[in-house]
Amino acid sequence: MILLSGGLDSATVLAIAKDKGFEPHAISFRYGQRHDVELDAARRVAAANNVDRHVIAEIDLRVFGGSALTADLDVPHHASVDDLDDGGIPITYVPARNTIFLSFALAWAETLGASDVFIGVNALDYSGYPDCRPEYIAAYEQMANLATKAGVEGTQRLKIHTPLINLTKAETIAKGLALGVDYSLTHSCYDPTVSGQACRTCDSCLLRRRGFAELGMTDPALGVASRRP
Amino acid sequence: MILLSGGLDSATVLAIAKDKGFEPHAISFRYGQRHDVELDAARRVAAANNVDRHVIAEIDLRVFGGSALTADLDVPHHASVDDLDDGGIPITYVPARNTIFLSFALAWAETLGASDVFIGVNALDYSGYPDCRPEYIAAYEQMANLATKAGVEGTQRLKIHTPLINLTKAETIAKGLALGVDYSLTHSCYDPTVSGQACRTCDSCLLRRRGFAELGMTDPALGVASRRP
Repeated sequence: MILLSGGLDSATVLAIAKDKGFEPHAISFRYGQRHDVELDAARRVAAANNVDRHVIAEIDLRVFGGSALTADLDVPHHASVDDLDDGGIPITYVPARNTIFLSFALAWAETLGASDVFIGVNALDYSGYPDCRPEYIAAYEQMANLATKAGVEGTQRLKIHTPLINLTKAETIAKGLALGVDYSLTHSCYDPTVSGQACRTCDSCLLRRRGFAELGMTDPALGVASRRP
Repeated sequence: MILLSGGLDSATVLAIAKDKGFEPHAISFRYGQRHDVELDAARRVAAANNVDRHVIAEIDLRVFGGSALTADLDVPHHASVDDLDDGGIPITYVPARNTIFLSFALAWAETLGASDVFIGVNALDYSGYPDCRPEYIAAYEQMANLATKAGVEGTQRLKIHTPLINLTKAETIAKGLALGVDYSLTHSCYDPTVSGQACRTCDSCLLRRRGFAELGMTDPALGVASRRP
């Protein structure tokens, strides 16, 4: 069970899961994002990887507000990656988002009898997001194993895999390239143009660009209008 | 933050929270139930209690299937409460439902700055549901406090209140009646008729009826078409 946003990280996670011999199912969310570009990217990435099944779950986090990604707040832009805020929790943080996403993955995993959930959280680049930290993931796993039939019956322990949690963006990209990930299919921008172009100046664009730059490369998705499948 | 299904238990929980001095917000879910009767009941109960705000969150658990409440499986019916299965997990169990519901409550609580979530789980009548047990709730609370801004910053600990967890149905009803709950507004049936009448023979109807019977009463919602607001 892969949480697939359509971004660079989850595309890499999908490749890692396949490389480990899993037959992946992918789940994406329409959660009141201000744009659908990332779901288009998720569909492209799922199709390119022949996932067994790709489900897009409809949820609506807009009823709660509270984040620049779902409410009418401005996504911050910066001239360079050196201007990123290091302290505090970014305004792009969506309250309890990973908790909700993992809970849907848990429901589907239980229905299918699957025991492995993969999520592309990262504790380095996103240290400001509480739900990207290893201690959070460990607590979630413990809770999940008390929440389900299989956990109660002791027949199957759920494992949450976080293969990127301690990698820099450049290390993630290097790993993905080694596994054949086509990053031109992915989309990570928080604030794309109407035509689906990455903005180049939000936190996510800047972190991606730096990652590719550290490998002496140009981000293949930056500045190019998102490809349609 | 009250998880309000419109059933007997959550209506009682709402009354308890008000009695403790909380100013309740209520959240209900359209989660692919086979009928809308319980959301009508949730609206009636919320209105009768003047809750600050009542949100109905749209989620779709049908994409995963796996439960008689959301899929095309038959809800079991029994002639009497003595015929209820004691062992195992009922077919009406919805995979990870409470985990998903609590995660939405967590998101809204974080957005509002609320720190108290009330849920009407019960470990006696629903011992077969893994996500109604005290150890599950404790693990959820621990996870939630690692998932949120307030948890990370140490400014506010989230508390999950489960005031009914060790009560029999009769004890729950007695408590609710003492607090003035109008149980004729509630709806608990898993398999209502098209016109909204309780079936009288599903697990939920039978447990309610026995609870009222133990108090020498008739269930005011049984056999009566659901009242519209």
